[in-house]
Amino acid sequence: MQILNDSIRALTEMRDGITWAYPTLTAVPGTHGFIDNTFADTTVPIFSGGGSGHDPAHWGYVGKGMLTGAIMGDFFMPPTATEIVQVIRAATHQRRAFLIVKNFVQDVKEFTAAAEELRQDGWNIGTAIVRDDVSVTGADHQQRRRGVAGTILVHKVVGAAAAQGASVTELQTLADQLLPELKTIGFSSSGAYIPGHENPSFTLPEDTISYGVGIHGEPGYHEETFRSSELLANELVDKLQINFHWQAGDHFAVLVNSLGGTTTMETLVFANDVRQLLTLGDVQVDFVKAGNFLSANGMHGLSLSLLRLANAAWLPLLQAPVQTPSWLQQ
Amino acid sequence: MQILNDSIRALTEMRDGITWAYPTLTAVPGTHGFIDNTFADTTVPIFSGGGSGHDPAHWGYVGKGMLTGAIMGDFFMPPTATEIVQVIRAATHQRRAFLIVKNFVQDVKEFTAAAEELRQDGWNIGTAIVRDDVSVTGADHQQRRRGVAGTILVHKVVGAAAAQGASVTELQTLADQLLPELKTIGFSSSGAYIPGHENPSFTLPEDTISYGVGIHGEPGYHEETFRSSELLANELVDKLQINFHWQAGDHFAVLVNSLGGTTTMETLVFANDVRQLLTLGDVQVDFVKAGNFLSANGMHGLSLSLLRLANAAWLPLLQAPVQTPSWLQQ
Repeated sequence: MQILNDSIRALTEMRDGITWAYPTLTAVPGTHGFIDNTFADTTVPIFSGGGSGHDPAHWGYVGKGMLTGAIMGDFFMPPTATEIVQVIRAATHQRRAFLIVKNFVQDVKEFTAAAEELRQDGWNIGTAIVRDDVSVTGADHQQRRRGVAGTILVHKVVGAAAAQGASVTELQTLADQLLPELKTIGFSSSGAYIPGHENPSFTLPEDTISYGVGIHGEPGYHEETFRSSELLANELVDKLQINFHWQAGDHFAVLVNSLGGTTTMETLVFANDVRQLLTLGDVQVDFVKAGNFLSANGMHGLSLSLLRLANAAWLPLLQAPVQTPSWLQQ
Repeated sequence: MQILNDSIRALTEMRDGITWAYPTLTAVPGTHGFIDNTFADTTVPIFSGGGSGHDPAHWGYVGKGMLTGAIMGDFFMPPTATEIVQVIRAATHQRRAFLIVKNFVQDVKEFTAAAEELRQDGWNIGTAIVRDDVSVTGADHQQRRRGVAGTILVHKVVGAAAAQGASVTELQTLADQLLPELKTIGFSSSGAYIPGHENPSFTLPEDTISYGVGIHGEPGYHEETFRSSELLANELVDKLQINFHWQAGDHFAVLVNSLGGTTTMETLVFANDVRQLLTLGDVQVDFVKAGNFLSANGMHGLSLSLLRLANAAWLPLLQAPVQTPSWLQQ
């Protein structure tokens, strides 16, 4: 049972709840998009988006120091290029923008088409395609690496640089350096809630964990019986180490993300397990966030994102002040 | 299935996760309490607490502009007077403090004993006993009105006044004026998760809502089959109106609180229903928060708190800046 009125109306009703609770967000009519109504249009505006159902992504990051606008589509469906262009044009008159896109086929297609349309109109557009999910392996893994919770760290670093006056070219250089240093892996014990559907997006046998589950319920790489939070953290940290080949003393930012259906207690107990394993690995953690940043609409699971701070300039960008609904949370 | 290691160790593991993610919080050894390590001890320190399992209450409100310290007990059990005194003494050397307590028999007993112990040692102590839950009715309702999510608004208003230099006497006057203007009512469709227990604290028949359920699973006043978010909002707003007897044009602050197990989408769709009903009621809403502020460890339900802004000074106190883990969230 979901506490909604009607699955068709859920997104527009949520929109009106969002603008009531967060008056600095303005909804863009005809879209599921929001813009920061405090944006002065003197710096490069940053946009992101994707399917709805990943709350508080991406609207929760609209505000000073992160996103200028967020464009969501229908539930688990990206917005159309037309909607993306409409929101961007509503937010700025300066013919420049930077787009942060999660690497799903349809998302990339729509955001790319939007960027092309604006470029043909003379706009200067930079783009970052986030491929942080390292759970998918195999010959075509560069194609299939999805954009997941690490995307929020890209919002933060790129958004802070934009707020400090970086040009589209400078933001592109920053994003190009940042993306290879960002990796995420997650697990789940349940599917996502889908408005209008009684059953979740998938079910697992009781007490079963699936590693590498996607945020839309794409199948994971391995299932096993749950034993402890610590063993889950161990699996994730191991897979990240294999991907990073980090050295003792490497500096990292950490994002522990609830997929929406965990308790705060679960999230923080798991975060503590991650803390202990990274300490054992002699990794230097300079920045930590733990909470509900990019969900799969109530999925009972967690993800772990690590950003290697390969450039000393990134930490102050992570720490820079923001005014958004969701970055400073819990 | 809960993603924990061991139910006995859950609270100390969570503690280490909290201090990792929120380095301005220092855990007080031998307690489940935290203090703000940025506190300069030049203003009256504010303390609150209660059982663990209500995350992010109350540790999530420790920081500049809200609480100086929070003292939790075991799961759903308040801290002892000894622990309360220990945390207060660790936070301040000025022999003054203000305590915000939720109205449960054991909580009041322990916090009162702590206050008495400190007073006997020459301390100047003010206290607020929050009784915002209006779901309990009957002859003994003043005794039984529980302290629930509205308590977070008391943290905010009293905490902001303290940060601005108010004395213990001034804080006591403020709290005494504030408390009668604060009312909360909630509902749930499921119990809370209890560490170490496979089953939740209670179960309801499928698609059943219980109104007035307590944050520890105390029984509600009415059960009915779920039909829509709007009808839930209607019931809550009606009950609050009966309690407030508000006039058209009265000014209010609103807190829509998830009990921990709702999706952000559910919380915001419900918030939008509340918005529409309050608009119909000609109520003037000056301040809105919607999110997960005081939970019942994963309970699938929501509460609605209204604070009548009977004094024009309260709104700027609600709006004053803070630096805490959880007030600015979601």
